[in-house]
Amino acid sequence: MSTVWMNQLSWLDYQRRITTDQPPVLLPVGALEQHGPHLPLGTDGLLSASVAADTAARVGGLVAPTLSYGYKSQPKCGGGQHFCGTTSVDAATLIGSVRDAVREFARHGVTQLVVVNGHYENQWFLIEGIDLGLRDAGPQTQLEVMRLEYWDFMTSATLADVFPEGFPGFALEHAAVLETSMMLHYHPSLVRLDLIPDDGPADFPPYDMYPTRTDWVPPSGVLSSAKGSSAEKGRLLAQEVAARMAQAIQSGFRPAK
Amino acid sequence: MSTVWMNQLSWLDYQRRITTDQPPVLLPVGALEQHGPHLPLGTDGLLSASVAADTAARVGGLVAPTLSYGYKSQPKCGGGQHFCGTTSVDAATLIGSVRDAVREFARHGVTQLVVVNGHYENQWFLIEGIDLGLRDAGPQTQLEVMRLEYWDFMTSATLADVFPEGFPGFALEHAAVLETSMMLHYHPSLVRLDLIPDDGPADFPPYDMYPTRTDWVPPSGVLSSAKGSSAEKGRLLAQEVAARMAQAIQSGFRPAK
Amino acid sequence: MSTVWMNQLSWLDYQRRITTDQPPVLLPVGALEQHGPHLPLGTDGLLSASVAADTAARVGGLVAPTLSYGYKSQPKCGGGQHFCGTTSVDAATLIGSVRDAVREFARHGVTQLVVVNGHYENQWFLIEGIDLGLRDAGPQTQLEVMRLEYWDFMTSATLADVFPEGFPGFALEHAAVLETSMMLHYHPSLVRLDLIPDDGPADFPPYDMYPTRTDWVPPSGVLSSAKGSSAEKGRLLAQEVAARMAQAIQSGFRPAK
Amino acid sequence: MSTVWMNQLSWLDYQRRITTDQPPVLLPVGALEQHGPHLPLGTDGLLSASVAADTAARVGGLVAPTLSYGYKSQPKCGGGQHFCGTTSVDAATLIGSVRDAVREFARHGVTQLVVVNGHYENQWFLIEGIDLGLRDAGPQTQLEVMRLEYWDFMTSATLADVFPEGFPGFALEHAAVLETSMMLHYHPSLVRLDLIPDDGPADFPPYDMYPTRTDWVPPSGVLSSAKGSSAEKGRLLAQEVAARMAQAIQSGFRPAK
Amino acid sequence: MSTVWMNQLSWLDYQRRITTDQPPVLLPVGALEQHGPHLPLGTDGLLSASVAADTAARVGGLVAPTLSYGYKSQPKCGGGQHFCGTTSVDAATLIGSVRDAVREFARHGVTQLVVVNGHYENQWFLIEGIDLGLRDAGPQTQLEVMRLEYWDFMTSATLADVFPEGFPGFALEHAAVLETSMMLHYHPSLVRLDLIPDDGPADFPPYDMYPTRTDWVPPSGVLSSAKGSSAEKGRLLAQEVAARMAQAIQSGFRPAK
Amino acid sequence: MSTVWMNQLSWLDYQRRITTDQPPVLLPVGALEQHGPHLPLGTDGLLSASVAADTAARVGGLVAPTLSYGYKSQPKCGGGQHFCGTTSVDAATLIGSVRDAVREFARHGVTQLVVVNGHYENQWFLIEGIDLGLRDAGPQTQLEVMRLEYWDFMTSATLADVFPEGFPGFALEHAAVLETSMMLHYHPSLVRLDLIPDDGPADFPPYDMYPTRTDWVPPSGVLSSAKGSSAEKGRLLAQEVAARMAQAIQSGFRPAK
Repeated sequence: MSTVWMNQLSWLDYQRRITTDQPPVLLPVGALEQHGPHLPLGTDGLLSASVAADTAARVGGLVAPTLSYGYKSQPKCGGGQHFCGTTSVDAATLIGSVRDAVREFARHGVTQLVVVNGHYENQWFLIEGIDLGLRDAGPQTQLEVMRLEYWDFMTSATLADVFPEGFPGFALEHAAVLETSMMLHYHPSLVRLDLIPDDGPADFPPYDMYPTRTDWVPPSGVLSSAKGSSAEKGRLLAQEVAARMAQAIQSGFRPAK
Repeated sequence: MSTVWMNQLSWLDYQRRITTDQPPVLLPVGALEQHGPHLPLGTDGLLSASVAADTAARVGGLVAPTLSYGYKSQPKCGGGQHFCGTTSVDAATLIGSVRDAVREFARHGVTQLVVVNGHYENQWFLIEGIDLGLRDAGPQTQLEVMRLEYWDFMTSATLADVFPEGFPGFALEHAAVLETSMMLHYHPSLVRLDLIPDDGPADFPPYDMYPTRTDWVPPSGVLSSAKGSSAEKGRLLAQEVAARMAQAIQSGFRPAK
Repeated sequence: MSTVWMNQLSWLDYQRRITTDQPPVLLPVGALEQHGPHLPLGTDGLLSASVAADTAARVGGLVAPTLSYGYKSQPKCGGGQHFCGTTSVDAATLIGSVRDAVREFARHGVTQLVVVNGHYENQWFLIEGIDLGLRDAGPQTQLEVMRLEYWDFMTSATLADVFPEGFPGFALEHAAVLETSMMLHYHPSLVRLDLIPDDGPADFPPYDMYPTRTDWVPPSGVLSSAKGSSAEKGRLLAQEVAARMAQAIQSGFRPAK
Repeated sequence: MSTVWMNQLSWLDYQRRITTDQPPVLLPVGALEQHGPHLPLGTDGLLSASVAADTAARVGGLVAPTLSYGYKSQPKCGGGQHFCGTTSVDAATLIGSVRDAVREFARHGVTQLVVVNGHYENQWFLIEGIDLGLRDAGPQTQLEVMRLEYWDFMTSATLADVFPEGFPGFALEHAAVLETSMMLHYHPSLVRLDLIPDDGPADFPPYDMYPTRTDWVPPSGVLSSAKGSSAEKGRLLAQEVAARMAQAIQSGFRPAK
Repeated sequence: MSTVWMNQLSWLDYQRRITTDQPPVLLPVGALEQHGPHLPLGTDGLLSASVAADTAARVGGLVAPTLSYGYKSQPKCGGGQHFCGTTSVDAATLIGSVRDAVREFARHGVTQLVVVNGHYENQWFLIEGIDLGLRDAGPQTQLEVMRLEYWDFMTSATLADVFPEGFPGFALEHAAVLETSMMLHYHPSLVRLDLIPDDGPADFPPYDMYPTRTDWVPPSGVLSSAKGSSAEKGRLLAQEVAARMAQAIQSGFRPAK
Repeated sequence: MSTVWMNQLSWLDYQRRITTDQPPVLLPVGALEQHGPHLPLGTDGLLSASVAADTAARVGGLVAPTLSYGYKSQPKCGGGQHFCGTTSVDAATLIGSVRDAVREFARHGVTQLVVVNGHYENQWFLIEGIDLGLRDAGPQTQLEVMRLEYWDFMTSATLADVFPEGFPGFALEHAAVLETSMMLHYHPSLVRLDLIPDDGPADFPPYDMYPTRTDWVPPSGVLSSAKGSSAEKGRLLAQEVAARMAQAIQSGFRPAK
C-alpha cells in the first residue's frame, strides 16, 4: 500500500515504514476561517494537507491527520474573529495539540517530523508546542522537528510570473491570488470564481486594536483581490512548493545515526 | 451547494445556513490508534465522520472538521499506548479542543451542536470540554450540545442479526466485527480482510495496571475476532445508526425560541 | 500499632512499614453527591474507604486519606450537578490530586499503590492523573499503580443472590440496592430505609444533553429502586469485594525487585 | 438528624438546612505531614476537622469533608518534603480544590463558607483558591467566605497559662505543645507521649534554601519540644478556639439579605 | 509631579490622573536576550521603555513597569536560546502576565492601554494575553487595548536616510543598525561600538529546525552588521517613532464615552 | 564594566562572569501596590532592587531585572486589591515567572540564585515557582536557590534604634516607618513626607473575609503611621540588610564543586 496518508495505514504497516525507512512524517496545520465569498472555510487545512501530500510523495514520507482548527484569526492576516464560521482555538489548545504530537511521534521512533503550517496566525504557537514537546521527549530523543510555512517556499521568480504587475507581498495574501490559485489547482470544485469580490487591498495602521475593529476589514473578508487567479498559477506554485519542500526535507535533517 | 462538510462552505454560505435554517452542527471526534493488522490507524475518526455525514444528510445538518487525535488508548478498549502508530493527546488538550469549539459555535449562533464520538476513551474528556465551553459561553447562550457515542444507536435487534451466535458486548469491540463491517461499508479499500487475525477474545482482570501491562493485549492489537465482518452488516449498522441519530437530533433538542 | 489508616500512623511507623513490608497503599476516591433521600451525600467516599480498609486488613496494607470530592455528577450515573449538596471538582483538579499523590508515594518508596474508586464519574480522570503522575515519577520508578472500581469485584453469582429477580445492571445502580445494602452493612446509622422512594428505573435516551436535562432524573435523585436492600446483602457484597480485591492485589503486582 | 458532618446528611436534609437556616459551612483543610514520632501524619486534618466540628456545634453549622492533602511542607514550619510519609500537593491542585469548592457552595445557595486551615503552608493557596472561586461565582453571588488559621484564635492569656515559662511563638509550633495537647484532647489514642523527642527548638537562618537543607531540621522532624503537653491544656485551647471562632462567625459575616 | 513613570506615582496621584485625564497607559514589553558583544542583554526592554516614555511625554500618558523577560529567542530573529544570558519565559507565563495586566488596568478604570513591544518573539503571546484579559474583563469593559511593535512606526523615508545603501529589511535587524543607533541615542554608555563584529548578514533557509541549529547563527549572536550605527540615526528614529506612536494613540482609540 | 545590573551587560560579559567567578545572581521581586499618599506604587520593586544591588556590590554578584508585578494585595499586609493603582498577578503567573527564571539560570550555569522578595504577599508563590523550576532543572542541576524577604535581615538591635518606643512588629509595616525610611535613603525624591497620614495602627480580626472588607483598611491605605521615618534610619536599615544578606550569601550556599 503506497498511500501517503498515515491514517489509512494499519499500525503494522506504519511500524514497518518507521522502522525500515525512517520516513519523514508531515503534520499539516490549518484553520477553519473565513476566506471570502469564493473560498471555503477549510482552505488553510486543505492547502497545507495538499502540499504536504505532494511533498510526501516526493520523499517517501507520510502525512499525519491535519490539525484543522487554528489560532484565532487576526484582522490583518485573516480578517478577524468576528466572522461567522471562523472557528478557532485558544493558544493553550494549539500548543497542547502540537506538544502531544511531538511527544507521540518521538515515542514511535520517528526521527523527522515536519510541521506544515497553512495559517499565518498559527506560527508562534507551533513553535511553543514543538519546544515543549521536545522538552517532554528529553535530550536523548532521536526526533528532529522542521517547522515551515509553505508559502515561504515560493521563489521570487515564480511570484513574478504569478504577479506580472508586481507581487504585493504576503501580508495581505489572505483569500487572494495565491490561495485562490492553489485551491483552483487542488480543489477546483470548492472555488467560486464568480463570487470573487472587488475589495481592493486593505490598508491597516501600524498597530492593532482590541477588541478588534471590525470596520478595518472589508465586509467580504477579503484583504486583497483574488482577480487573476488561475489553476495554472496554482499548479506552478504548488509544484514549486512541493519540490522545494522535498529538497528541504532531504537536506535539512541531520543524517540518521 | 448542498455539501454537509462545513469546511467546504464559504463563510457566507455557512452564515446563511446558520441564520436561516439553524442546522445542527455535528463535530466528529476520533483517534489515531492501532486497529489491528486489517484496519487503518484512522478508523475511529473515519467512522465518526462517516456516520456524522450520513446523519447530517438526513437532518439538513453540517459536519465540522473531525478532531482526529483522541485520548490515550487503554488496553481494555483500544490496546494501549505501547503500539507504534497510536498517537494520542493528554486530557487537557482534548478538553481544550472541545471547550474552544463549543465557545466558537455558540458565538456563531449555532443552537444545536452534536459531538459524535467514535473513540471510547474520549467520552469523559468530551463531557468536561462541553461543560467548560458552556461555562465560558455563559447562562444566556442559545446553544445546546448533544454528546453521543455512535454505537449506542445500534438496536439489540440489529446486533442480534449481526451476531447470530450472540453479541459479545461492546467491551471488546475494538477492531472487531462492528468496526470492521462499518469500514467495509464506508471505506472498503482501507480494509484488509485477509489480515484479520485469529486472536480470540481478550480476557482482562477487573482492574487496570499502570504502567500498562502490554502482555494483557494480543500482539496484533485485536481484542476480539473480526471474523464474520461484511460490508452488508456494515451497511445495516450504518443505516440504523444514522437513522436513529437523525431521529435523536430531531426530537432531542429544545424547540428554537 | 496495627491500624490500616495511614493518617493515624506517625511518619516513623509509616516509614518502617514502607521499608520493611512494602505494603500496598490504597487510596480511596469518592464524591460528595446526592444519593437520594435515604443515603448520605458522602456515600461514595464512605464506601470506597470501607472496602479499602477491609481489603487492607487482609493484605497488610495501608489506607491513605480519601479524596472526598469527585468529578461532576452526570444524570445517567449520579443524577447530575443540579442537586443541592452535590459538590464536585473540575477535571483538572481531580487529575492534579491523583497526579500529586502518585508522585509523592513514588518518592516514599511505595511500590504498590491501589486507587480504589467509588464514584463512577471519576474513572477517566483517575486514569489521566495516574498517567501524568507516572510520567513525573520517571521511567525508573519502582511504583506500580492498580486502579479499580470496587463494584467490578462482585461476581455474577453474588449478584444473582442479591437480585433474585435478575440483576438490572450497574448502569442505574446509583443509590440503589448495591450501595444501600453496603451502607447498611458499613454505616447503618446513616441509612434511612423509611425514606427509600418508589422511583422506578430511570429511562435514558442513548445520548446526553448539555446543559443537562434535569427532567430526565427523578426529583428524588434515585435512578433505580433501593427496595430490597439489606445489611445482609451488604455484608455478602462487601466481603466478596474485599476478598477479591485482596486477591487481585496479591497476584496483580509484579514481584518486588 | 443533628450531625454537623455534611457528608452524613442526605441531600434533602442538606438542602432543607441551607434553605431554612442558611448555616455556615466549614471546610477544614489539613495536610498529610510528618509530626514527629509521637503524633500521626494526619494531625493537621484531624485538628482542623475537630475544631471545625466543635465550632459548628456552637453555631448550628455544617462541616464539609476535609481536604486532607496540603501544600508542600517547608523546613521552618513543617520539617520539609524529605520526610517519608509527608504527602503533599502542588499549588495548582490545592488552589483548584478550593476554587471548585467555593464555586459549588455558591451554587448551593450557601451564604457563609468558613475555610478552617490547620496547616501553615496552605494559607496563601487557600487565598488564591477563594479569590478565583469568587471570580467564577461572579459579582452577584450571595456567598461570603471567611478564611482562618485556627491557632490565631488562642488568646495570649490562654497561651500564658499553657506556657508558664513563656510562649515561644507560633513559628516553631509544629508537633509541639499546642498540637500535641490538642491531639491529647481530641484523639488521645493517636498520641505516643512516650516517644516525644528531646529535640530542642530548631534554629533557622533568616532565609530558605532550595533544594531544602535537610540537615537544618532535627531527624525526628520536631522543631520544638512537645514536653509539657497535656489533655487539659488541649481542652483549654480547643474550647477557646471553638468559642472564639463561633463568635467570629456570628459577628463576621454580613447580615443575610 | 509630572513623571511618566507609573511606579513613581502614589496611588492617589495615579487615581487622580486616571479619573480626571484618562491618560493612556503604556506597558513596555522587552526581553533579556543576547544582543551581540556590543549591546546589553536588556536592550529590548530598555528601548521599549524609552520609546514608551518619549511617547507618553507627548500624549500625557503613563508608563507601567516593563515586562523585562520575553518569549524564547529564535535563531532567525534573536539568535536562539543557546546563548548564555538569554533568559526567557514560556508562552503561558507571558500570556498570563499580559492577561493579568489587562484585567487590572480595566479594574482601575483605564480606558486606553498601549502594549509597546520591543522583542519580535513576543508578539503573538501578547495578542493571546490581551484577548484573554479582555475576555476576563467582560463585554462591558471601557478598556481598549492597542498593541504595537515600535519599529513599525519608522517610515520608509527615514529608513532610507538611515540606510543610504538600502534598507535590508527588519528580518535580520537584531542587534544591528536600528537597535544599536537607538541605544546610542538613549543609553550611549551601554554600547561598545568597538566591539561590533563583522558578521555579515545571516542567511537562513525557509524553514526552522528544532532543536535549533546553533551553527546557523554567527557565534557573536549578531545577524546583520551594526556598522554605520550612530546616535544621530538613533535620534532620528526615536523621534519619529515617538511622534508617530503619539499620533496613533491620539487618533486610534475610540472617543471616551 | 563593573555594573551589578545584569541587563546592562552584554551576553559575552555575562558569560565570562558566570564562567569565571560563578557570581550569585539576585532576582528582586516586587509589586505595583498602593503605599499610601507618601510613597510610590513601585515601592516594593524599588526597594528589593536597591537592597539587591547593595548586596551584589558586596559579594561580586549580579542583579537580574526585577519582577515588578506581585501577587494580589491583601488587606492585612498591603491594603487590598480595591485600591486604584494596585496592579497584581494571579498565582499561576507569578509561579510561572519564577519557575522559568530558575530553569533559565540553571541552563546558564549559574550556581547561586538569590530571590530577593520585597512584597509580603509574594512569598509562597515564589516558593512554588522555585520548587517547580528545580523540578524542571532536574536532580543533576548545579543550581542552588536562596529565597529571602529582605526585612528578615534587620536585627532587633537596629529595630530598637529605629523604634525607640518599641517595634510594633512587621505585621503592619506597610508604607510605614521601615519602608518610608528606606525609600528616603534610596529614592528620596519619590517620598512626600508632607503627605504622611495620621492613620493609627489598623486593627484586624483574627480571620480574613472575601470579598475583602474594604472598610477594614484606612482610606489612605496606610496600616501604621510612617511618622518618625528618616533617611538616616533608612541608611542604617539598608546597610544592615545588605551587609547581612551578603554574609548569608557567602556562607549559605554549598561550596562549588
